[in-house]
This record gives sequence, C-alpha cells and structure tokens, in this order.
Amino acid sequence: MTNDLDFIKKTIQLADENVQNGHGGPFAAIIVKEGKIIATGVNSVTSELDPTAHAEIKAIRNACKALNTYQLNDCIIYSSCEPCPMCLGAIYWSRPKKIVFAANKTDAANAGFDDSLIYDQLNLPIAERKIETVEIALENKNQPFLSWTNFNSKIDY
Amino acid sequence: MTNDLDFIKKTIQLADENVQNGHGGPFAAIIVKEGKIIATGVNSVTSELDPTAHAEIKAIRNACKALNTYQLNDCIIYSSCEPCPMCLGAIYWSRPKKIVFAANKTDAANAGFDDSLIYDQLNLPIAERKIETVEIALENKNQPFLSWTNFNSKIDY
Repeated sequence: MTNDLDFIKKTIQLADENVQNGHGGPFAAIIVKEGKIIATGVNSVTSELDPTAHAEIKAIRNACKALNTYQLNDCIIYSSCEPCPMCLGAIYWSRPKKIVFAANKTDAANAGFDDSLIYDQLNLPIAERKIETVEIALENKNQPFLSWTNFNSKIDY
Repeated sequence: MTNDLDFIKKTIQLADENVQNGHGGPFAAIIVKEGKIIATGVNSVTSELDPTAHAEIKAIRNACKALNTYQLNDCIIYSSCEPCPMCLGAIYWSRPKKIVFAANKTDAANAGFDDSLIYDQLNLPIAERKIETVEIALENKNQPFLSWTNFNSKIDY
C-alpha cells in the first residue's frame, strides 16, 4: 500500500469491522510514516468506558507509543471520518504533516453523530454555553505558570 | 471542602506541584461529584509521551474509571486553566454539569501556551488550514455508518 487511496480504504474497512465485532462506534484511523502504518485506532468509547477514546485519539496515542515521542512529525493521519473538534485539537497538538479523511461532518450527522453542537459551543461566549462555565479569578491563578517559567529542567512541548 | 473556591484552589496547588516535581506542564484538573473529589488529572504530555494527556483529559479518563461509566452526569470539572479546544471537546462528550476554571486563555498565552491557533484552525475552511487536509470521497465512505444503523446490539454513546 503506497498511496492515500489505499490507506483511506483501509480505515473504512477497520471502522466497519469495529461495528461488526461490537467493539464501538463506526470510526477508525491509521497513522502512517514513510509509507508504513505505524499505528491504528478505533472508536472504543463504550468498550473502554472512555469518552475520549475516539479513533483518532487512540491512533495518536498508539503512534506516539510506537515512535516513543509525543510529536508525530512527518506522519499522516487517515481517518474514516472528518475529525470532531476534540480530535482535531489532538491532531494539532500532535503536529502531523497531513490529514486525510473519507466521510465528512454531514455524513456523520446524517448517521446520528452530530458534532456541530461542539463546534458551535467553542465559538460562543462562556456565559452563553450549554454547560455552565464559571471563571474564578483567583489571586494566585498564575502561580503554576510562574513556576513553569522559573523551572530550569522543564521539557517544552 | 465544599465549595467551588476550595476545589479550584486545589487545582492551582496540583498544577504547581506538577511543575515542581518535573512531571509535566503547569495544568491540573479535579472532577467532583456530590461534593466529593472522584478524580484528578495533571498534564502528563512529556512524562507519558502522549500529546492528548492534558489535565482535563486525564481527569475525565480517571473519573470514568472511578465511576465505571463513559458519561460524567452530575459531575463538576475544575480546571486550573481555561480548557483548550481538545479538552473542551472532551468535556462536551463526557457531559458534566459544570466547568469551573481559574487562569484564562490570555493568562495561558502569556505563559507560552497559546491555543488560539487551534481555535482559529477549527473555524477555517479545510483548504486554508495549516495542516494539509484532504477529503477523499470514497464510494463506500458511509459503509461503517450503514453497518452501525443495522447493528442490533449497538451501545449508543
């Protein structure tokens, strides 16, 4: 397998298998570096009781384990479906070079997986959000940041 | 400890300790249900080699383990800092009843933790994003969704 089409077809196959074997939702992701699959991930929310266990998040964690790093430089993430805001955030933090997906947000919403609520919430002022959100401006709220700035042996990320 | 102020002070203390003991970045979160702390989480990106190991994500995973569920009904998430888009996404998927934070986005950006890039990217058309993003409209891209719809023993989430 050497091109985007082959890898993205594989994610659709894995996503379909993830449903058929009762493991979780209809989503899968693959991470490729230098033409080779280094990790896969499938939706495992209900089987692992982890609401963050979306396919892309699982694949990113597995790829980082495989590469022994917390950055996916030069990697490509293939996802069976356009990433939700949580996964897109995770992808940006992990810094791969490219994202390829098959089904899009509209396809997902038609199947009952609508993440437009979350996209909308991210853009609303805090006071207007669906989950009550409160800022408490503690006097020492920046103490952890000050400690970080002064900590000599920190590992930047 | 019975109120927001006490719990949020505790997150600042945990975040500061996380820097001092060299474990990770200056962030912590606590999840409370019925007035009791059921889980904590600290930034563990570099120590666990996991770019998704932000404080809130760790706390959500730990809370779900503690409660044996993938939903945080009736829980409150206290975070030392306003959640990034990834964590806010995770919070919405886990469905707590309230979010309380201390430092805000601006405080974090001033300390070198600027997540405005990710907020901006989420709102850009795919073609204009910083990480190359490609949609491949495979003919069978909706097969996993069709299988999901037809799968009788699925667990909705």
